[in-house]
Amino acid sequence: MASFEHPYVPRDLELHGYVPCFLSQSEIVAPYLGISVVVVALVWILSGRVPKISGLDRLLMCWWAFTGLTHIILEGYFAFSPEFYKEKTPFFLAEVWKEYSKGDSRYAGRDSVIVTVEGVTAVIEGPACLLAIYAIATKKAYRHTLQLAICLGQLYGCLIYFITAFLEGDNFSTNQFYYWVYYIGANCWWILIPSLIARRSWKKINAAFQAEKKTKAN
Amino acid sequence: MASFEHPYVPRDLELHGYVPCFLSQSEIVAPYLGISVVVVALVWILSGRVPKISGLDRLLMCWWAFTGLTHIILEGYFAFSPEFYKEKTPFFLAEVWKEYSKGDSRYAGRDSVIVTVEGVTAVIEGPACLLAIYAIATKKAYRHTLQLAICLGQLYGCLIYFITAFLEGDNFSTNQFYYWVYYIGANCWWILIPSLIARRSWKKINAAFQAEKKTKAN
Repeated sequence: MASFEHPYVPRDLELHGYVPCFLSQSEIVAPYLGISVVVVALVWILSGRVPKISGLDRLLMCWWAFTGLTHIILEGYFAFSPEFYKEKTPFFLAEVWKEYSKGDSRYAGRDSVIVTVEGVTAVIEGPACLLAIYAIATKKAYRHTLQLAICLGQLYGCLIYFITAFLEGDNFSTNQFYYWVYYIGANCWWILIPSLIARRSWKKINAAFQAEKKTKAN
Repeated sequence: MASFEHPYVPRDLELHGYVPCFLSQSEIVAPYLGISVVVVALVWILSGRVPKISGLDRLLMCWWAFTGLTHIILEGYFAFSPEFYKEKTPFFLAEVWKEYSKGDSRYAGRDSVIVTVEGVTAVIEGPACLLAIYAIATKKAYRHTLQLAICLGQLYGCLIYFITAFLEGDNFSTNQFYYWVYYIGANCWWILIPSLIARRSWKKINAAFQAEKKTKAN
């Protein structure tokens, strides 16, 4: 079998048995975005049937479906597939990580912190996101607590992700394009959106305690 | 200057300029436990002056003082002292980490995941623990949310800490004694206690939402 040279940085990263991407960037990104749009549209339509639900809660259900399925399917595949870069067929999930590794070669290089953060995200946070959809739909008392907990987990994961790369010299991207589009661009949403949701959940919980205080005072 | 051989595992870990511990194990552990007992006793006594406070809340204030100061002082020193193992004086904080590295050499070896987790713990969670003491004493609406958030951060940190070591072969202890007493024994409290507090905070928050629901129903 022919041996292929990998496109990742640092150049001295050893990846025996590496097989290049079969699909182009657009052939990988378009289906991911396409399926995500379908999932979001489905959740939006179905959530419209939930009685007395706000538009914001419906939007949140869409987000939790998108991020939960991304955690479980995409990140779950990565966490438990140490040899994805050797995949000899155009299997979509392997292609995603072969391509994303151009933005962060620690994925192909199986860096233990990446595997750990992705594993925790896939196994704990992913199912918790799907539970959040159910909790919002059925107005469970724990719905804001659960959303806050998941957001804090996502934010903690991002902190670990970016700080470890920084401490190790921040030299894991093939070039500036992949650095800004994949490494920064794809991840910044998981800082921005969880920050906003965590802030909202925090306020909702505080309001509940203030209501409880009043109840006790009466 | 004479060059010293380090006592850590793996044996091929390179630590140029390593200077051995000046203090014995008991000279390091006893002051830490002693000062901790003093801090806990002080917080216990002072918290007795807070009107209408439960014994459990006073205990929690003691815990947050102990763990908060440990995060800020001990872990904060480690996070920002990359050359602690070269310390030529019996400076207590350097001695702590020279000694603890026998249980986990990733500390002396400056593993980026350890520096990141300790840095986040020292800079974010440490001050948050001290804020929790104030929040409990003044019965702030956010006191349970804050405690839950810190506990989840501590638990996430422990998960990353143990899983990365496991993925890298779990071979960072000088011997079985240090493995069980330092690596497992010293850390297991930060899984056990945050789990218990998180569970309690979760329940308290749910109860507040149920009370709020009743208020709205009336």
